[in-house]
Amino acid sequence: MRTRFQQGLDELRARLLRMGGLAEQAVDRACQAYIDRDLARCHAVLENESQINVTEREIDELAFDLLAMQQPMATDLRFILAVTKINSDLERVGDQAVNIAERVMDMVELPKAELPVDIARMAAAVSAMVRRALESFIEGKAELAQAVLEMDNVVDRMRDDAFITLVKTMNERPAVTQQALDALLIARNLERVADHATNIAEDVIFWVRGADVRHNVALETPVDQAITDTH
Amino acid sequence: MRTRFQQGLDELRARLLRMGGLAEQAVDRACQAYIDRDLARCHAVLENESQINVTEREIDELAFDLLAMQQPMATDLRFILAVTKINSDLERVGDQAVNIAERVMDMVELPKAELPVDIARMAAAVSAMVRRALESFIEGKAELAQAVLEMDNVVDRMRDDAFITLVKTMNERPAVTQQALDALLIARNLERVADHATNIAEDVIFWVRGADVRHNVALETPVDQAITDTH
Repeated sequence: MRTRFQQGLDELRARLLRMGGLAEQAVDRACQAYIDRDLARCHAVLENESQINVTEREIDELAFDLLAMQQPMATDLRFILAVTKINSDLERVGDQAVNIAERVMDMVELPKAELPVDIARMAAAVSAMVRRALESFIEGKAELAQAVLEMDNVVDRMRDDAFITLVKTMNERPAVTQQALDALLIARNLERVADHATNIAEDVIFWVRGADVRHNVALETPVDQAITDTH
Repeated sequence: MRTRFQQGLDELRARLLRMGGLAEQAVDRACQAYIDRDLARCHAVLENESQINVTEREIDELAFDLLAMQQPMATDLRFILAVTKINSDLERVGDQAVNIAERVMDMVELPKAELPVDIARMAAAVSAMVRRALESFIEGKAELAQAVLEMDNVVDRMRDDAFITLVKTMNERPAVTQQALDALLIARNLERVADHATNIAEDVIFWVRGADVRHNVALETPVDQAITDTH
């Protein structure tokens, strides 16, 4: 039978996954809005931001309650702290989606311009990073997290390429400077989403390895505490 | 006499202040490097990044140790969790300083261009936000934090103005597109520093008010725990 504390940890994990789902959905919607020049999807991203913010606060509150409920073991403590950090990163992934949606809303008001940048490809790479970073956390696997760090280099290269070609576009076709700048800023927002995925992966590595290194911390727990410890 | 736990909290506060000092210094240096086209200062920012990253990890470790050491009271728990969040934001302020330094390094290779943007003024506003956000945390004053949120609107307006004038520059003087883009991205990086200051201020409000709202949580602490609680 699982204790109330363990049920709380399960709930925390489930909520973080929901938060991850909301953040991923926001990025996917914003990028789809770019591809389809779709204002309705932009508005959906803006409207869902408050849901993401509320979920962030709820997760923090639950983490707080779990820490206040009883003296967690070292592994559980690291898990809870990792959740609060990943939670912040996911909220900021949501912010980036809002930034992208705002850029798309700007672009839709301007004449459509063919731009030498593959936002869809970059978005796919970035979404995969967020998804895998969350997987690495849920499975507690540092090696999965390591793979996310390597993907970050690929996204950085895409961003660099986008910068070079779009600055060239601005120089050669001043009439589409604004559109090219919007696309450039969207590429930058996507790179930042990738950075958040990287932060999540780094936290996973830190906490997983930390938990390994400090495997014997529980032995230092005072005996009276250990006796009442039910998990 | 202060307990070991209380000494730990003091140390945590002191380290976070040091972290704040490092992050602020990095932003100030990067902006001074912009003004003076000073490569040496850019390199100093890049070199200090690892110091910031190490300090971030040390603060997280100390926070972890304090949480593992004993069952903190609700107020202390909120304080410790706020420290870990603010810590992350300060580390990212440092990242933004690195981004600014990289842009400056790009600009220094290009011919100097007069640009219609007052980066020094924006930098001063942003630095003030970071400083006040930290003050609001150290003093635990939600009203100081509230003032930081209001300053964010001013910085957002500066960023919007910079965007409008710099895009106009790109259109009218294609020869300085790259320099104008660098300045635009620096304005954006500064806006992001302001966002981090805002995050810090929001965390202060949330934790301070939360601590108020939950003022009686300690009463729910099991009696045997309360008896051994020395802080």
